[in-house]
Amino acid sequence: MTYSLGLDGGGTKTECVVLDANGQVAGQGVAGPSNPLRVGFAAAAGALTLAARAALTSAGAQMTQVTAVCAGLAGAGRPSVANRVLAFLAAEFPQAFVHATTDLEIALEAAVGGGPGVVLIAGTGSSAYGRNAEGKTARAGGYGPWLGDEGSAFDVGRRALAAAALARDEGEPPTRLEERIFAALGCSDWDDLTERIARSTDEVFPAVFPVVIEAAEIGDRVARDILLDAATALASLADIVIRRLGLAHGEFALATSGGALGRTALLDWPLERSLLRFAPRARIGPLRVSPAIGAARLAKRLAASHPASDSRSTPAYGTED
Amino acid sequence: MTYSLGLDGGGTKTECVVLDANGQVAGQGVAGPSNPLRVGFAAAAGALTLAARAALTSAGAQMTQVTAVCAGLAGAGRPSVANRVLAFLAAEFPQAFVHATTDLEIALEAAVGGGPGVVLIAGTGSSAYGRNAEGKTARAGGYGPWLGDEGSAFDVGRRALAAAALARDEGEPPTRLEERIFAALGCSDWDDLTERIARSTDEVFPAVFPVVIEAAEIGDRVARDILLDAATALASLADIVIRRLGLAHGEFALATSGGALGRTALLDWPLERSLLRFAPRARIGPLRVSPAIGAARLAKRLAASHPASDSRSTPAYGTED
Repeated sequence: MTYSLGLDGGGTKTECVVLDANGQVAGQGVAGPSNPLRVGFAAAAGALTLAARAALTSAGAQMTQVTAVCAGLAGAGRPSVANRVLAFLAAEFPQAFVHATTDLEIALEAAVGGGPGVVLIAGTGSSAYGRNAEGKTARAGGYGPWLGDEGSAFDVGRRALAAAALARDEGEPPTRLEERIFAALGCSDWDDLTERIARSTDEVFPAVFPVVIEAAEIGDRVARDILLDAATALASLADIVIRRLGLAHGEFALATSGGALGRTALLDWPLERSLLRFAPRARIGPLRVSPAIGAARLAKRLAASHPASDSRSTPAYGTED
Repeated sequence: MTYSLGLDGGGTKTECVVLDANGQVAGQGVAGPSNPLRVGFAAAAGALTLAARAALTSAGAQMTQVTAVCAGLAGAGRPSVANRVLAFLAAEFPQAFVHATTDLEIALEAAVGGGPGVVLIAGTGSSAYGRNAEGKTARAGGYGPWLGDEGSAFDVGRRALAAAALARDEGEPPTRLEERIFAALGCSDWDDLTERIARSTDEVFPAVFPVVIEAAEIGDRVARDILLDAATALASLADIVIRRLGLAHGEFALATSGGALGRTALLDWPLERSLLRFAPRARIGPLRVSPAIGAARLAKRLAASHPASDSRSTPAYGTED
């Protein structure tokens, strides 16, 4: 039996899936984060190895039986990152076809295989990616929290705290939202909060996201407005991709993915309404298959289209920009 | 002769002024940054010492002739920071009255002494501070770049890059603004830029501010809109303080300060128009006297109002919040 291996490396965890020759899931493994730009390259490589070994063990498979490997990592849109990941995979799986690409491309593969479609991802960050029937691709967002990531869990949390800071300046008594945020973070006061933010924004802002949902669901107006703005911003990312690919009037799959979605109707519903305005005939729904499975399928598909003598792919995505 | 010494510690430099017994400037000194939250406490203390020694040397004065010292530092609104600065000043100037406070309070002192008025500061960060005739104070902004600092040089630079990222996603050719930014930063491409931002936002975003001004002045619409938004955001900070102090219909001095102002009419003029809407009878104008002089005057004024036996002040500002 031969196997295809797919890796989905994110900012919080790495998932690995092993598919057998029939495309069925034979094993799975999980390890720590492997976004090289957030955790460094050595830690990322370690997490990829651990997740792969765990998945192979659970499949009862040997590394030498793996004929195709694909890793999709946030940050791998940059050629310098993609090439390092590719070199690592080539060394780890010397006998396999290997491919390194972005988290976006494996999510699109999970959604529509090699066909046309769009994925909208909203987790700690946010971005959209798509492909039309002619094979043209387009991307929007994904610049990180300083220049973008609008509508992400990070952004929603940050906006809620900015709103609390403004209310404080206005001399308003602490809102229920503010009180809940401080309680959830275990912060004693604004000094404490400011120092926590200075130490690690990643440990503060995404953690505020569920508190915003909770407050919005019991009617907090500020929290509701922040979620509505997030829906608009996310739809706008998808809209850019849809327009650039000429899909606005077409039928196509528009898959959503990421930890910020599927959590509350107060974000999901206005997002779907906005998306339908931009693409009335789109089939909108959450990704049904994990990006790690998308990665394994992409590995298999690309390996099949490459002659055996050319077993190293070049990054397909890195030069798109 | 006795002297008063004022220190203005910011994110880019520390200024020290020595006033003689007649309130005339007798000496000045400059050193590196001394915002303890940005450069660490040891570096901040070192810069304060260097600036003070240089100012005393230029005044031909001895440390033992200094009877009152005040340091105004960004970040010293927190009691923990103010107390460390106070302890440092007490050790450096054992025979003098010492006081530690915020950059905002010394700017207000420079503007209006102990009287009523408002200062609006727009440099790398942004904030507003004021006092009414009853002695009540109010503050707005100053939460740092993640939760605020709207209209600051940092924020303007960040918005210009976010606009460029959006235009790139839209598939537009690089605008003149984008080209100028990349040239000014010496960045080769977006990968390079993203890595520079990840390394140090302080070295990227404020450096983009003058490029935005330049582009706006030759008619770039995006750059003009960003400066207009900055003016609105800054006016809104002042408006919060003006309303909280009940000054909207009064005559009072509204002083502006900081490196983001006085650079272009495209920011200064809409800011003044907005401020006059909020406070039609305010006397608006740039700070005529440096915050370091404000610090020295504050030192002298506070020392005079304290009995000699009580030569250590407690932070006047730290508990306001």
